[in-house]
Amino acid sequence: MNIITLITDFGTSDAYVGMMKGVILSINPSATIIDINHHVDPQDVCQAAYLIKSAYHYFPKGTVHVVVVDPGVGSGRAIIAFEIKGHIFMSPDNGVLTPVMAVGQAESIVRIENSNFFLQSVSQTFHGRDIFAPVAAHLSMGRDIKSMGPLIDTKDLHFLDIPLPSISKKELVGHIITIDRFGNLITNLDTNSLEKFYDSDKKLMVTIGQTSIKGLSESYESAGHQQPLAIIGSAGYIEIAVNCGSAKEYFKAKKGDTVKVSHG
Amino acid sequence: MNIITLITDFGTSDAYVGMMKGVILSINPSATIIDINHHVDPQDVCQAAYLIKSAYHYFPKGTVHVVVVDPGVGSGRAIIAFEIKGHIFMSPDNGVLTPVMAVGQAESIVRIENSNFFLQSVSQTFHGRDIFAPVAAHLSMGRDIKSMGPLIDTKDLHFLDIPLPSISKKELVGHIITIDRFGNLITNLDTNSLEKFYDSDKKLMVTIGQTSIKGLSESYESAGHQQPLAIIGSAGYIEIAVNCGSAKEYFKAKKGDTVKVSHG
Amino acid sequence: MNIITLITDFGTSDAYVGMMKGVILSINPSATIIDINHHVDPQDVCQAAYLIKSAYHYFPKGTVHVVVVDPGVGSGRAIIAFEIKGHIFMSPDNGVLTPVMAVGQAESIVRIENSNFFLQSVSQTFHGRDIFAPVAAHLSMGRDIKSMGPLIDTKDLHFLDIPLPSISKKELVGHIITIDRFGNLITNLDTNSLEKFYDSDKKLMVTIGQTSIKGLSESYESAGHQQPLAIIGSAGYIEIAVNCGSAKEYFKAKKGDTVKVSHG
Repeated sequence: MNIITLITDFGTSDAYVGMMKGVILSINPSATIIDINHHVDPQDVCQAAYLIKSAYHYFPKGTVHVVVVDPGVGSGRAIIAFEIKGHIFMSPDNGVLTPVMAVGQAESIVRIENSNFFLQSVSQTFHGRDIFAPVAAHLSMGRDIKSMGPLIDTKDLHFLDIPLPSISKKELVGHIITIDRFGNLITNLDTNSLEKFYDSDKKLMVTIGQTSIKGLSESYESAGHQQPLAIIGSAGYIEIAVNCGSAKEYFKAKKGDTVKVSHG
Repeated sequence: MNIITLITDFGTSDAYVGMMKGVILSINPSATIIDINHHVDPQDVCQAAYLIKSAYHYFPKGTVHVVVVDPGVGSGRAIIAFEIKGHIFMSPDNGVLTPVMAVGQAESIVRIENSNFFLQSVSQTFHGRDIFAPVAAHLSMGRDIKSMGPLIDTKDLHFLDIPLPSISKKELVGHIITIDRFGNLITNLDTNSLEKFYDSDKKLMVTIGQTSIKGLSESYESAGHQQPLAIIGSAGYIEIAVNCGSAKEYFKAKKGDTVKVSHG
Repeated sequence: MNIITLITDFGTSDAYVGMMKGVILSINPSATIIDINHHVDPQDVCQAAYLIKSAYHYFPKGTVHVVVVDPGVGSGRAIIAFEIKGHIFMSPDNGVLTPVMAVGQAESIVRIENSNFFLQSVSQTFHGRDIFAPVAAHLSMGRDIKSMGPLIDTKDLHFLDIPLPSISKKELVGHIITIDRFGNLITNLDTNSLEKFYDSDKKLMVTIGQTSIKGLSESYESAGHQQPLAIIGSAGYIEIAVNCGSAKEYFKAKKGDTVKVSHG
């Protein structure tokens, strides 16, 4: 398929991402490289985990997804790759793919160690360029994952302690996991949790701070101008928005803040 | 031609644009996707209108131009597509293509309604991914616009009330429509208006706030260091700049501010 | 090879870069265009010089590298192109390629003057679109550099007065040349200078402001949490970092600040 997606926290003010693309194209000149996001908050593994889980399945099968949010670069942490549902994933072994691993059965989980596929000289500070990019290029050309290093077991992997919603009879409690450019507050309250909590969305109450919002809206415009609303966002999570405004500013909200759903 | 351009207000800190590209490549793996701008001020339809009008004609004929600045997503607003001068355009029916429609005769104007070309599940908050991206992919593969929905008439479209320059014998009055990264103030005073106002540019005076600038410069460097100047910018509009500085800061200027041209 | 890289100070909030890509694709529809960086500080020729020197060699031979950081646009400054080590470079004649010219023998140095390869109408403010983009497109298709204008000599070129490290018996003195997104302070102290100064890195002391750091670390994590360290960065220059933090904030550092290496 030749498609490689990139999620990093490198930003776009340096040449880091460009160097990775140069390495990829040197090996596979016909690769199609797609930037999903290079503006992950530095070393925010949780945010990157949410992004790749939300985005990967919109790409065709055979796509190689590379996630380099890697506070442990140069330490002993491993680099891993595996296949799920026809997609190939590659990341540091720091749990960033924990939510992806929940969607299916991972196959061909390997620890990437075969330096034949690395750049000749590997720096201690930029494995994105020296290991991830060349290995991804080879994988995108159809090279077998298993040629990259020894097979390992799921139980050998690091998993992320991702805050899950807690469900009681009385309420469903979650957190803001990311805030988008429009100031929409995206929570970890997914439709699955919601269905477990309550089988009709007619009489829900979504509470953030001191404000309670009645019910889930069908569109941003269904609330009054500059009024808050709760809605199932495009990735299947409850988000809190303000029609023609920013919920982030309206609620002075930040990542990690609590959001509750109760019977209205 | 297989080229698709994107203008959105989605920013690049989320996965929204990446998801759109995944959808496009799932349908047309050989599409060439070019980002014109994802940093349109949230919901600023006027700014997006200026950008697409300035940029589209530098692309080859056959290019599909997708503009998703869409405050009305999820409400009843239509999505439209048409062809002008060999280029294909697609946007919400909110007037963002008003300036483009002024450059020629639009053909095959349709309201996009054929859900066979949409993603199977269409969210209420992200038509960019669920409708615009897949339809654009099909259009880029040569699929007839008319297969996307019913033909409609120009008079059925929404038009943007774009502030046009006002011309009197005494002066030409316009506004700042966008400010670029260098702090250059780009006005809606185009060369056409200028020619109507005066047939020689030798003795013009361009006024912003309390400052009058004599004549139009040939280059930024023709003004003194850190001195203001007026110039016909690269898109054919009068812009106010400061040599090796920022006119935005120099004049404390903002979008919408008045700029006048008078006889010097 | 068909690959064109771009380094500019145009930012991504306007349509400037998109227009350049449209022009390129109109001439060479199969070009692969890679953004190395569009966020060079406005008119910071030194920063762009560092970026292109660090990045170009990760791309395959035959790549056309275009650098448009061009405070002199519209003045009489020339535009140049040449080939080094199988890569083709193109920039204003303002010295931005000075470090690249130090890596080998430049061949086919030309002043780009053949307007047959320009856009038909050349603006005074945007040579990136009107000259650089179309010429780069032709070069990427294998057109001979020498067809673009007259051959000139190295001594006809402008060179940048790039601050080089000064070496004495007692110390090696350099400067911060750029600061990356993580707040890492990247200096102009390269491994070559370091080897000339001292043939073992075991007992070095790196000093910034009032702080002296003992030795060079092997990885960011080898320093304590939130502690500063010095390391040979991924481009071969000494950089000062803070483990899980920002050296920029830790040291209140800015571009141009002095960094010294002495015997520890």
